[in-house]
Amino acid sequence: MTEDALVIFTPSGKRGRFALGTPVLTAARQLGVDLDSVCGGRGICSKCQISPGYGEFPKHGVHVDDDALTPWNSVEERYKSKRGMAPGRRLGCQAQVMGDVVIDVPPESQVHKQVIRKSATQRDIVMDPATRALFVEVTEPDMHNPSGDFERLKEALAAQWGVTDVIADLALLSRLQPVLRKGEWKVTVVLHKGNHDTRTRLLEVYPGFHDGALYGLAIDLGSTTIAAHLCNLTDGAVLASNGLMNPQIRFGEDLMSRVSYAMMNPGGDVEMTRAVREAINALAKSIAEEAKIDPRAIFEVVFVMNPVMHHLLMGIDPVELGQAPFALATSGSLSLDGRDLELTNIHRAARVYVLPCIAGHVGADCAAVALSEEPGKSDDMVLIVDVGTNAEILLGNKSRVLACSSPTGPAFEGAQISSGQRAAPGAIERVEIDPVSKEPRFRVIGSDLWSTDPGFAEATKGSGITGICGSGIIEAVAEMRLAGILDQTGLIGSAEQVGTERCVTFGRTQSYLLHDASAEGGPKIWVTQGDIRAIQLAKSALYAGARLLMDEMGIEKVEKVILAGAFGAHISPKHAMVLGMIPDVPLDKVISAGNAAGTGARIALCNVGSRNAIEATVHEIHKVETAIEPKFQEHFVNASAIPNAVEPFPELLKIVTLPDVSYNPASGGGEGGRRRRR
Amino acid sequence: MTEDALVIFTPSGKRGRFALGTPVLTAARQLGVDLDSVCGGRGICSKCQISPGYGEFPKHGVHVDDDALTPWNSVEERYKSKRGMAPGRRLGCQAQVMGDVVIDVPPESQVHKQVIRKSATQRDIVMDPATRALFVEVTEPDMHNPSGDFERLKEALAAQWGVTDVIADLALLSRLQPVLRKGEWKVTVVLHKGNHDTRTRLLEVYPGFHDGALYGLAIDLGSTTIAAHLCNLTDGAVLASNGLMNPQIRFGEDLMSRVSYAMMNPGGDVEMTRAVREAINALAKSIAEEAKIDPRAIFEVVFVMNPVMHHLLMGIDPVELGQAPFALATSGSLSLDGRDLELTNIHRAARVYVLPCIAGHVGADCAAVALSEEPGKSDDMVLIVDVGTNAEILLGNKSRVLACSSPTGPAFEGAQISSGQRAAPGAIERVEIDPVSKEPRFRVIGSDLWSTDPGFAEATKGSGITGICGSGIIEAVAEMRLAGILDQTGLIGSAEQVGTERCVTFGRTQSYLLHDASAEGGPKIWVTQGDIRAIQLAKSALYAGARLLMDEMGIEKVEKVILAGAFGAHISPKHAMVLGMIPDVPLDKVISAGNAAGTGARIALCNVGSRNAIEATVHEIHKVETAIEPKFQEHFVNASAIPNAVEPFPELLKIVTLPDVSYNPASGGGEGGRRRRR
Repeated sequence: MTEDALVIFTPSGKRGRFALGTPVLTAARQLGVDLDSVCGGRGICSKCQISPGYGEFPKHGVHVDDDALTPWNSVEERYKSKRGMAPGRRLGCQAQVMGDVVIDVPPESQVHKQVIRKSATQRDIVMDPATRALFVEVTEPDMHNPSGDFERLKEALAAQWGVTDVIADLALLSRLQPVLRKGEWKVTVVLHKGNHDTRTRLLEVYPGFHDGALYGLAIDLGSTTIAAHLCNLTDGAVLASNGLMNPQIRFGEDLMSRVSYAMMNPGGDVEMTRAVREAINALAKSIAEEAKIDPRAIFEVVFVMNPVMHHLLMGIDPVELGQAPFALATSGSLSLDGRDLELTNIHRAARVYVLPCIAGHVGADCAAVALSEEPGKSDDMVLIVDVGTNAEILLGNKSRVLACSSPTGPAFEGAQISSGQRAAPGAIERVEIDPVSKEPRFRVIGSDLWSTDPGFAEATKGSGITGICGSGIIEAVAEMRLAGILDQTGLIGSAEQVGTERCVTFGRTQSYLLHDASAEGGPKIWVTQGDIRAIQLAKSALYAGARLLMDEMGIEKVEKVILAGAFGAHISPKHAMVLGMIPDVPLDKVISAGNAAGTGARIALCNVGSRNAIEATVHEIHKVETAIEPKFQEHFVNASAIPNAVEPFPELLKIVTLPDVSYNPASGGGEGGRRRRR
Repeated sequence: MTEDALVIFTPSGKRGRFALGTPVLTAARQLGVDLDSVCGGRGICSKCQISPGYGEFPKHGVHVDDDALTPWNSVEERYKSKRGMAPGRRLGCQAQVMGDVVIDVPPESQVHKQVIRKSATQRDIVMDPATRALFVEVTEPDMHNPSGDFERLKEALAAQWGVTDVIADLALLSRLQPVLRKGEWKVTVVLHKGNHDTRTRLLEVYPGFHDGALYGLAIDLGSTTIAAHLCNLTDGAVLASNGLMNPQIRFGEDLMSRVSYAMMNPGGDVEMTRAVREAINALAKSIAEEAKIDPRAIFEVVFVMNPVMHHLLMGIDPVELGQAPFALATSGSLSLDGRDLELTNIHRAARVYVLPCIAGHVGADCAAVALSEEPGKSDDMVLIVDVGTNAEILLGNKSRVLACSSPTGPAFEGAQISSGQRAAPGAIERVEIDPVSKEPRFRVIGSDLWSTDPGFAEATKGSGITGICGSGIIEAVAEMRLAGILDQTGLIGSAEQVGTERCVTFGRTQSYLLHDASAEGGPKIWVTQGDIRAIQLAKSALYAGARLLMDEMGIEKVEKVILAGAFGAHISPKHAMVLGMIPDVPLDKVISAGNAAGTGARIALCNVGSRNAIEATVHEIHKVETAIEPKFQEHFVNASAIPNAVEPFPELLKIVTLPDVSYNPASGGGEGGRRRRR
């Protein structure tokens, strides 16, 4: 009878007795301990590194002798000298159990490792990607027992890895024979099994042991911006994040103008499809260059986007999305080949997963926000707004989740604003206005200094002061309201009414001069009455959508507000609430979630099980159609006032005072109309 | 309580009681009676026609009153006036049960109808195609309950037809919305579910009820000839059969020369792949034209072929098939998109099924022969030879089946024969030689007259007498042997030796003049010594392969021989046996099966279950590799003699006498070498 020993794994706490001489990797597998291996225990891949502990472990009731594992062997020595290994580490496939031992599996050796997200408010991602690499030894062909090379590869995968029902396309089959022979019947395969797949796809085969990582792209395809994260599919690390403008903008700034373009121009949808696919190819190329990886190592892409972007990427005419009942061609998730979308700059066999849409106006981007922020698991009644050219809005808690979208237009992104620009160096992003002097100070992207700080001119010399970005315009408008430059209806007062020469009359309306950079050859940066109107329209749409969900939910206030979207990360909650963009809550209950849609895409990329989860969740989210709801118009009109014509903002009023001014010409103001332009 | 009535269906004999007013189609479905319907009982498709019987049915113990079914209704009247209906027929979806009734389901109303094959020796095909059309009514979109049009189509298919898990590609999704609206939410879908599919593919969607048939192609891709059958996928009817030369012939006549071409010329495999794919596209176009159907109604293609043709069609370099161990890239069956093979002349979404290969030298064509001829179900020990440029040979019975291939070369197809030609009008196909006068008579394709019959010259004036085809050369050589013009070793005797001026010396060898058409401006048709050698090589390879299987099986004689292949249909069993092509059996045990590989392809096309059957069978067929078996050489050398150097042919000798002549120059013959050419 062979002697055995106790093996205890940490952090799992799993334990069992094993015959002396059992490799640690074998023990781990038998106990179901999450210990990685690509080469299957051949001492090649080093993924199974472990940290044995020695001495007394009173907690576990064992003492570990120095010789509890077999000594370092030549495989480990060779690996260490070639690639290096952290002190105290062993290869789990080489070290054999010779006595009771406590084995720690470090995070990087776990297959289902957790990726710790930066923000403490956000949950972690457990790695469980659909794509993985395995090393496998294939039996050589035998003419007396004939079977295809592919069939023997499949047998090897079943025997060595338990992977069955593998399929390959013709392009791979045509490459298989030379690769098997070059690798001397040892190959590394890249396998993919999506959440709806009953079979495993063979995406790639490399001769011998292939050490290269596998990558995926998580893409948030916005109407204005296409943002991508390049992720390592083994450890979830984000190697690069990059974005570019959606080239479809030349066909129309907002969604409905693009739908119109498709309706008015035969083949217009095809043109827009081509444009966005080319942009994604360009983005894939540039992000791979930035991360210094081979773009052919990108094996998976996850997309999230609104329904119109969805249809245009898929090559589906979005015309039905432009008219009631806003029928999607398909609302379910999609599992595709990259080739189907003409994604030519990534691996030839790369797979694509597209999150499901919730409704004709509520897209896969909203589903991704739901996946990232999980309103359906919240105890609090939480309102999540993802502000882009369209705002996606979710409201709910554990018992019920509602969703809608609201056509805010691109004003919050700096478009349709006279001095608006993208959030780039030189753009004003923060604004304060002194309520007495009405003098502003501001900060621009690229410098931490306020414009009144010493050294500001020097610090911003490079970028200049070129315009105002989305968060800047919100702060400017809110500060103008707080300083009494703007009345509740959104009218800018004249120089006389407000008491500052910064208010200047153009035609029949006033503008407020935020900054004059003309001395340095830059622009004059105004906030015009038109800018105010654009912001009012946008914020009214956003608020009316949120309010409609609150009606449907039967509530008068929410307990928490999450601002999502790239924009949401930069917005000042106080100023958003002064504008009446979001419902009244205590300021500390307004949280920024960053690009939640992009995060949702990243979760779906790294964890294949999350795809089933969001597909199920989407069916449970009740969707409210804003376009046909009469109450939406009422809420919209009320929300046009700043912050609101009828709703009290008690939490807001605890922290700010809203001057009671009125610049309506009918009520005696508006003298400025007669003043000349300077 | 509702009254009910007894309904008896014939020919199935299924019976049950149903409430009065139950439509006959509903009763059939509940009893599992095989009654077709595409429109699901809406009175549109007329597929559910039935023949009610009236009066006494003592066998069933019922009397059927004249009013056992509801009277003709307006739907039936309209259908009959528009399309016509056979007397006594009713629409099963319209006629309702009002009393005990006997209902006959005519063959054309059965889904799983049998296609009676022409030859009595062959089994029938039960229709169970992978592709079928269904009419379905889809719920209109509702903005308060948003779901995609495709999702509602899937729900309708599940509810109305029990078809679940349907998938569609982007090209179809992009067409779905306008088609649904054009059809006013009623569409006819074409669905495909192959034998390995867990999900059903949506291949096409037509607005409203689409009455067009669905078609499939069964293609036997030979080294020399590509033959196709165009089949109706509903009733299995063959609408057209057509063939063309394999354009790869310009890269090499036989398989090994094509493999060599690929090895010697970089990109040569790609060139050959392109050539054969183009030929298949041309064939699809011409066969559709011949049958006067829209080629876009071809939704499925089944391919059978030898391994080299297999790899070249798939775009796989066949180099490994040219050297031991003759490893296939893949041996399993393949389910592909037509697009994968660049089949552009058929329906865009058409599916392809390729039968499995048995081994590196024994291909899907041999598997198709096994599917058609079923040696594994035979009580007799049967030898099946499918003669093409390569011969596929199967030997077995219920207990065991063996297979091999043998490189016969193209001589049996008329190639490599001095006056050889394809089997076309003007080709000599039958030959008789008088053993006394040594004078021949023959028949040519296109006329039933012998050359000695009155009116022969007139009858063959159109075609002329242009050459000799495969079956003709076999008869010519065998008749020369029977007439003593040829000795056992295959030498042609001189004019002096044989006693006819038809034997003429060219260089060091003799030729026999079969026909001189030079007076009519035609060729002189010789059988040269080189022709005899080519036939000897081909027939020795064939016999040696068969003999090797007999060794492996441990038998000295077979009980039955099946000659397959287009060539096998025309060959004379007696002459084949005189040549020693096939083992000695009583002549009435030699059966022609026609193009068995093509038939196998047609079975796989029409019956999806047969695909599983042949895939299982292929695993049970034991394959013998001729190329490395020393006994093969021995059998080959022995088989070089006519009929054989060592084996007795007792059955043959019962019906023919083989003259004991010898024309070996060493033994005193061969004077002719000195004669001048005339």
